Amino acid sequence: MSATISPLAPKSYPDMPSLRGVRMATAAAGIKYKSRTDVLMMVFDEPAAVAGVFTKSKCPSAPVDFCRSNLSHGVARTVVVNSGNANAFTGVKGRAATELTAKSASEAVGCGENEVYLASTGVIGEPLDATKFAGVLGDMHKTATGDFWLEAAKAIMTTDTYPKVATRTAEIGGVTVTINGIAKGAGMIAPDMATMLSFVVTDADISAPVLQNLLSAGVEPSFNSMTVDSDTSTSDTLMLFATGAAAKDGQAQIVDAKDPALASFRDALNALLKDLAIQVARDGEGATKMLEITVTGAETDAAAKTIALSIANSPLVKTAAAGEDANWGRIVMAVGKAGEAADRDKLAIWFGDVRVAVNGERDAGYSEEAASNVMKGQDIPIRVDLGLGSGKATVWTCDLTKEYVAINGDYRS
Amino acid sequence: MSATISPLAPKSYPDMPSLRGVRMATAAAGIKYKSRTDVLMMVFDEPAAVAGVFTKSKCPSAPVDFCRSNLSHGVARTVVVNSGNANAFTGVKGRAATELTAKSASEAVGCGENEVYLASTGVIGEPLDATKFAGVLGDMHKTATGDFWLEAAKAIMTTDTYPKVATRTAEIGGVTVTINGIAKGAGMIAPDMATMLSFVVTDADISAPVLQNLLSAGVEPSFNSMTVDSDTSTSDTLMLFATGAAAKDGQAQIVDAKDPALASFRDALNALLKDLAIQVARDGEGATKMLEITVTGAETDAAAKTIALSIANSPLVKTAAAGEDANWGRIVMAVGKAGEAADRDKLAIWFGDVRVAVNGERDAGYSEEAASNVMKGQDIPIRVDLGLGSGKATVWTCDLTKEYVAINGDYRS
Repeated sequence: MSATISPLAPKSYPDMPSLRGVRMATAAAGIKYKSRTDVLMMVFDEPAAVAGVFTKSKCPSAPVDFCRSNLSHGVARTVVVNSGNANAFTGVKGRAATELTAKSASEAVGCGENEVYLASTGVIGEPLDATKFAGVLGDMHKTATGDFWLEAAKAIMTTDTYPKVATRTAEIGGVTVTINGIAKGAGMIAPDMATMLSFVVTDADISAPVLQNLLSAGVEPSFNSMTVDSDTSTSDTLMLFATGAAAKDGQAQIVDAKDPALASFRDALNALLKDLAIQVARDGEGATKMLEITVTGAETDAAAKTIALSIANSPLVKTAAAGEDANWGRIVMAVGKAGEAADRDKLAIWFGDVRVAVNGERDAGYSEEAASNVMKGQDIPIRVDLGLGSGKATVWTCDLTKEYVAINGDYRS
Repeated sequence: MSATISPLAPKSYPDMPSLRGVRMATAAAGIKYKSRTDVLMMVFDEPAAVAGVFTKSKCPSAPVDFCRSNLSHGVARTVVVNSGNANAFTGVKGRAATELTAKSASEAVGCGENEVYLASTGVIGEPLDATKFAGVLGDMHKTATGDFWLEAAKAIMTTDTYPKVATRTAEIGGVTVTINGIAKGAGMIAPDMATMLSFVVTDADISAPVLQNLLSAGVEPSFNSMTVDSDTSTSDTLMLFATGAAAKDGQAQIVDAKDPALASFRDALNALLKDLAIQVARDGEGATKMLEITVTGAETDAAAKTIALSIANSPLVKTAAAGEDANWGRIVMAVGKAGEAADRDKLAIWFGDVRVAVNGERDAGYSEEAASNVMKGQDIPIRVDLGLGSGKATVWTCDLTKEYVAINGDYRS
């Protein structure tokens, strides 16, 4: 948790409603931080359907391994998350720590260990002493309450400068359902590398395979379209739980991902995931600018996304944004290096509504002042049209500042 | 050219011998910089064999297009290089500028336009006014001299803090030959994105196809194993010329890349290319540390190189180096995100001779002090063993500092 709040932080937080079927508690276990909460327990009193997507790292953390192996069971009763230690690259000790936590959680809740989900975020390579919090899970289970979303988001923060919460409602067959979510992360944020963690819960009654379908599709235009520094955590975890409490209002369970009754829910879920993803990008370490990069006219949507991410991850594009420099030459460079089809002489580039380049050269009506004015804003839209096809994609990132270097040059000490 | 010289600069320059068959001149044309040279002309009085490798960017500069189309001719009589403007993304005007320069150069030298080679480095998107220097090429051709390598290297600098030169000798069939090279660049250095340019000349008598074979192989473990910020210029150019003057000493022309008489020359050329590449990495913008990253035990050499570059390009690894933080967790992260086969529990990591991790967890004998001492050095060797096969690779990079952000956040203005 940083002393300074990002200038890109939301001006206010949404009022997070309680959501039937889930309760939460936090604790201050002193894993790494002083005087703050660092453990979150979510409890589903009735079994919740569950879906998850995880880091693509070949060196995943012990909790990621643990969650992956439980997911086929499809049912969740509790989630335990700690900040301050990622339990990653901790070998046999790491597996022992997940086992101890799962055993303690299953005893506290009275469920199977395969109904427990775990996530850890923080320094890697340090053994996690799970005895610090395993003993308090019983008490946490008893005191957990529904009106606790903002506190839950705070307990999982590392170098985040603000907690990230979002809520939406949708209708399924005439019944109103709610989706609440929390997230932490700022790219490869803190202790050492940090992590993007996000937990989303709905009271809708939706089967686990359908949830997984919704989540796997929803992650692409949201969390997978957001980058701070191109580095991929060992611990990235996004989970979606459905308590099914809306069944009491007559909502018929959804068991087919193609069910047209899902339309409103899918839209609401995607909007919520995008909301959380953008909140994470806006809290990028050292960020002072938010870049929304849209690529149109690519051969395919996938090619558009590759090019958009090449722009978003370019240190030279990101430092130019930090310097409020309308340096469109670096956009050309990043398009050129992406490896996807591009025809230099068909390229057009806009900063905001200002077209700065067209047909492979600087726009005849180019105004440095107009382009610079766009760069002075806090939110900078950048658009590239390739003129080749109808593929398009939008991604989000932040600028690269001296503060990023300062934060990451001396984190562990 | 920066006011401050990189702390990683060489302590002294080698004495660059004249090389039979090539003469050079420089001029101050005021393309962008004041009070310094910004045009280099190299002249081969007899036709030289030529080979080149160029940027893989899909949006290459006009001079790169020009050189590529001339290369099949296989003969060079002159090279004209300017700094201060990259003539990239300049559309029709860019092609007109290369045509004017080539015409002026061919008239000055008395050769075909297809025997002219061009390179430009500097700001992109600005039309290059080639009339500023095209008129002086006749004079430059007359005054060009052989003892001018260091001045030649200075004329092509942009944000480089020192000129880069290297020389080697080799034997071909008992005859001593010389190889001289110059380079500029510091990754995607300055004006906007900058460029890696390098020109290497030998007096050996070697046919153009053999030169191309040597250069294409030699670029992989040298310039293609070096990264400053992962950004790829529109203008990267590496050319190798053979004047053939050694034929007068009885050196029989080499026309077969498999000729065993090439062994000494190949070794010398590869050593020179590596020397120049490391000089470029050591002049990375804002650099204070040089990282040599070696990956062993990968499935293949190519996989080892992908992983080594993933480490070298990670902003989190590079900021940790700037902060002298022995943050090996970020090495694990970068291995994990590279996409190549890796087994967390077989991974071992060294900083210098200090093994910090083994078998997927922190080394039992880990000493923070010993690891930190390695990080305090100016040159930091990092080794990762994957324990999977015999693939290996070494790459070079520099750290990521606040100075990099400062340099690149406000270059154009």
